[in-house]
Amino acid sequence: MDYPNDQHPGAPVRAGIPEHGRIPKYYAVKARVAALLDELGEGGTLPTERELALRYEVARETVRQALRDLLLEGRLRRHGRGTVVAGPKLEQPLALASYTEGVRRQGLSPGRTLISLDRFPCQDALAEELGVERGRPVWHMERVLLADDERVGLESTYVPVDRVPRLDVEFSPDLSFYSYLHDRLGIAFGDADERIETVLATPREALLIGTPPALPMLLIHRTSRDTDGKRLERVRTLFRGDRFSFTARLGRQG
Amino acid sequence: MDYPNDQHPGAPVRAGIPEHGRIPKYYAVKARVAALLDELGEGGTLPTERELALRYEVARETVRQALRDLLLEGRLRRHGRGTVVAGPKLEQPLALASYTEGVRRQGLSPGRTLISLDRFPCQDALAEELGVERGRPVWHMERVLLADDERVGLESTYVPVDRVPRLDVEFSPDLSFYSYLHDRLGIAFGDADERIETVLATPREALLIGTPPALPMLLIHRTSRDTDGKRLERVRTLFRGDRFSFTARLGRQG
Repeated sequence: MDYPNDQHPGAPVRAGIPEHGRIPKYYAVKARVAALLDELGEGGTLPTERELALRYEVARETVRQALRDLLLEGRLRRHGRGTVVAGPKLEQPLALASYTEGVRRQGLSPGRTLISLDRFPCQDALAEELGVERGRPVWHMERVLLADDERVGLESTYVPVDRVPRLDVEFSPDLSFYSYLHDRLGIAFGDADERIETVLATPREALLIGTPPALPMLLIHRTSRDTDGKRLERVRTLFRGDRFSFTARLGRQG
Repeated sequence: MDYPNDQHPGAPVRAGIPEHGRIPKYYAVKARVAALLDELGEGGTLPTERELALRYEVARETVRQALRDLLLEGRLRRHGRGTVVAGPKLEQPLALASYTEGVRRQGLSPGRTLISLDRFPCQDALAEELGVERGRPVWHMERVLLADDERVGLESTYVPVDRVPRLDVEFSPDLSFYSYLHDRLGIAFGDADERIETVLATPREALLIGTPPALPMLLIHRTSRDTDGKRLERVRTLFRGDRFSFTARLGRQG
């Protein structure tokens, strides 16, 4: 839940309008379309750009700019040749739980598509993060993340070959890597450091995930250790910013 | 630290280039400018658009698009009439620690500018989050967040008037609200729920923070409780996505 300014009567400003009172025209259209989305409800089909331009008496380019914003924010989604009202963002816990668990908790079916799996000699920075010697072999596994068959993210996992020597022959890349580590190798996660930021997808990433290049993404960096405190993996996961949010429960001392 | 594809020799693809091999021209320029930034180092001044267009033999519009990306990503910043190489993003812990502590830890000086402080009768959704009855008075305090005098965020705090009856006369809005609660009223934080997402700033928010409207922002929603488990505040903080990242330490069970 968000609190737009129009929810508190005493406020000097309303719904994103600057104090100087000059509202960009596309933004006024955006606010009206946003109200329309609430009426239509999730899955409802939006009128065409042409119809909206006529309805609001503005140029189609103005409507297009408003819809672009709403698409980037995840309030709308393309569906075939039309545009429909999107559901709320998925909430993924910032926790040691895997992607699999997080997506299942939302009632969706998680999936993955392997893009590449290869081994290479570990470079300096990565060697430090993985706690291995420079030049030791490391797996790099890159997978597209799916939720109900929709592409929602891209994950790069770096893990020393010594820890998972048979990754290439034993592991089904459409399944959970964490379950594999646990069930097959008896390795469990102890703790992890995460860093979250917003970035633009590269053209390659945008192509793999199927997003417009301008879409803001959430990038999560993770380095994790097993229950013995030994460094285990370095992961870089890119999530669609219009489809995901992340939650954390903070205790007395973080 | 990030691992571009060119760090692992076995990879089929390099540095964000799609598999089909067609690199958008602006992206090739962006990659070359990014390499130039590494050479120049933090604070170094970038050549003008005109000079870069001549150097790379492309149109100025192509250079402009590349620089826009690098600005949005926080790798460049405007400085007076020029453009300089930006430092790394600030890392703010996702913890009960206040903004003040987080910024100080980075060696910067935190500050705040009051935009508005008013009281209004609590609406439904907010009443539930604050654990107060609908219609009870609530403070809404809106402040711009500063780091070394640079505007980096915008914070809206909602807190029941009953908890902090003298907020308007007792509290200096350029100081830490958490310190005020603790030192003056003996209220300490117990735990909090946070949700983090990426959004576009509204025109009003962009104006207050002084960012271009297209800049992706990180929005953090927080509801927190005091040490007695009583709900205390609802906060909505918008941070510049080009200037901030958030870190978390994850334990065995999140």
